[in-house]
Amino acid sequence: MNDDQLLLSIAVLGGTGKEGKGLAYRWARAGYRVFIGSRSEEKAVAAAQEIQQMLGEGSSVVGMSNPAAAKEANIVVITVPYSAHRDTLEAVKEELKGKILVDVTVPLVPPKVSTVQMPAAGSAAQEAKQIVGEGVEVCAAFQNISHEHLMDDADVECDVLVTGTSKDARAETIKLVQAAGLKGWDAGPIENSVVVEGLTSVLIGINKKYGSTHAGITITGAGNSPK
Amino acid sequence: MNDDQLLLSIAVLGGTGKEGKGLAYRWARAGYRVFIGSRSEEKAVAAAQEIQQMLGEGSSVVGMSNPAAAKEANIVVITVPYSAHRDTLEAVKEELKGKILVDVTVPLVPPKVSTVQMPAAGSAAQEAKQIVGEGVEVCAAFQNISHEHLMDDADVECDVLVTGTSKDARAETIKLVQAAGLKGWDAGPIENSVVVEGLTSVLIGINKKYGSTHAGITITGAGNSPK
Repeated sequence: MNDDQLLLSIAVLGGTGKEGKGLAYRWARAGYRVFIGSRSEEKAVAAAQEIQQMLGEGSSVVGMSNPAAAKEANIVVITVPYSAHRDTLEAVKEELKGKILVDVTVPLVPPKVSTVQMPAAGSAAQEAKQIVGEGVEVCAAFQNISHEHLMDDADVECDVLVTGTSKDARAETIKLVQAAGLKGWDAGPIENSVVVEGLTSVLIGINKKYGSTHAGITITGAGNSPK
Repeated sequence: MNDDQLLLSIAVLGGTGKEGKGLAYRWARAGYRVFIGSRSEEKAVAAAQEIQQMLGEGSSVVGMSNPAAAKEANIVVITVPYSAHRDTLEAVKEELKGKILVDVTVPLVPPKVSTVQMPAAGSAAQEAKQIVGEGVEVCAAFQNISHEHLMDDADVECDVLVTGTSKDARAETIKLVQAAGLKGWDAGPIENSVVVEGLTSVLIGINKKYGSTHAGITITGAGNSPK
């Protein structure tokens, strides 16, 4: 554990879902204080206990409501389905001022989930920025990571492209990527989120076409970003 | 050379540019009949002669105007800068009926070339489809491939994501990818082109940030698509 981790606590809104719980597990494993948020406090407590039991004493994972989790943490990660994206952000936005929001949302529109269909704002992350307003840095990351291997300790063979409203916020988010045991790349401004969110639809289509379950991407030809 | 190649001829519009000439070289090397098109017939002839000299007898590369090249070929590839995209398509669209158009264009808007900025149609490929109209299948591919290693015989460590207006057209385009010595993936409908075109801006940004010159991507976790 280093100084950054001692200072940082992470809220995972929607942390009872597979992706959120997997990320929460990895951050708790890395020594961060993790607050799991959910619309159901009961489910949040249960998810936190599950992770705490896996990691044993010395880890710190607590379940609570989404707004309470957002209030407690320095960095707030949102991992809800797109249908709950706006409502969840509206419910917590007062707690986000001065913080970094990391949006994991992919704006899939069933049934055509392998076709890119972005909201009017351009992407879910840009929509999030519109909702939370000034004083909140918004990054987008982890949209292409299959939840499957987050809660075992396997290597995840997929890089994380990080977009966001400032270079500093992207750098902070890349630290979280690395803490989760993944390789992160600065993928540029928030306008580039359409690429990373849309890539999830491309990967879903590749899984369908090629019979795979967890297609991902890696960046080549650019050396090794620190993992 | 197999039956497909005997039947197929490829026009490369804008084939005097680095990307187009590199692709033309690789297809001629694979045994396809290649027509290099340019606004300048003189430059087209010079580029064709250059490739012909590299490959020697038995290869077939001819230079001509863009419309003449489009008329001769079964498959038409457009590799012009975005600023010449519309005019080039308008000049050849009558020659495209019943054919496949493969669009390599990335709609970069200088000076912010590492920020995704798509045209109103959603992507350059969707704009191409609007211009060429009914009776032409439009695919998009090769936007993420650095021209650097196309004209030597080095392996290119970047996969090609192929989007397009039909599954059959994407399958035909993937054959061209493979003929060029690259690995191709069906990346879904033409609406997904924003991801692949936009990825070029992300890769330009990664090159700038991480000091590389030819960042690319590979698809992981989905087995080996045939190369």
